[in-house]
Amino acid sequence: MNPTVTRQGANYTTADLGAADAWKGYTAEVAALPGVTIPGKFFLHPLLGLTGMEVSVNCLPAGMKVPFYHTHREHEELYVFLRGRGQFQVDGEVIEIREGTMLRVSPAGERTWRNNSQEDLYYLVIQAPQGGLKSPGTEDGVTVQRKVAWPA
Amino acid sequence: MNPTVTRQGANYTTADLGAADAWKGYTAEVAALPGVTIPGKFFLHPLLGLTGMEVSVNCLPAGMKVPFYHTHREHEELYVFLRGRGQFQVDGEVIEIREGTMLRVSPAGERTWRNNSQEDLYYLVIQAPQGGLKSPGTEDGVTVQRKVAWPA
Repeated sequence: MNPTVTRQGANYTTADLGAADAWKGYTAEVAALPGVTIPGKFFLHPLLGLTGMEVSVNCLPAGMKVPFYHTHREHEELYVFLRGRGQFQVDGEVIEIREGTMLRVSPAGERTWRNNSQEDLYYLVIQAPQGGLKSPGTEDGVTVQRKVAWPA
Repeated sequence: MNPTVTRQGANYTTADLGAADAWKGYTAEVAALPGVTIPGKFFLHPLLGLTGMEVSVNCLPAGMKVPFYHTHREHEELYVFLRGRGQFQVDGEVIEIREGTMLRVSPAGERTWRNNSQEDLYYLVIQAPQGGLKSPGTEDGVTVQRKVAWPA
């Protein structure tokens, strides 16, 4: 069963997805594949009410591969590999992926990936409109001039 | 020493950051805190040439807390907690965080967090302009009509 919202306030929404092992049991649908339920994939955008990014949590089981190439109309993607090993392909180039590999792909890149290992592959996929960042994240933050207080 | 680019092509850039334990040794600077080198934080935007999002990898050691509240001018944030436990505060509300907690914060939310546990806390912080997503990620993808081929 897919996760639900744990708690929300005026300026936040949170969900507890559990340890990565649990992600394997989640499912997703995507517009490009009508009628298909994808196992081991779950989108955070609709759940958390994200407005600037789409993020999915993913598990690709040992020996499995994504059965198509895909591109994007407007979105840049960042793949964050958290556990396991595999191979990624962009425009025909093969890239080895493993825990800690961070991979940016431009919208036009024709991409696919596979888990050619003996263990499950866990990763996040983050999307946001290409070129949408007007300033670096480090310049967008504002420090609040008030002492931090925590309940005892 | 901070990570460097592993490989790049016309439509991608990749870096190998290693397992989360290695993140503890990385450092970052932010505009809001001039002259301060922050340990256990590393930004992917400049390294990978991201244009639509800012992403940092983070380790907050056991017993440590962020010493200020902050807001954002334009960016929505998603905190992805990968390992450990702690507490997060938005507008004075205290939220328990743990492995698998996904927390969206609007720009105006006054936020801070602490690791009040005995183990290090590992997480990603993702930023993108609030409201920048014109279509869900599931509708931005385009399947390529070409059979997937992998080298033998």
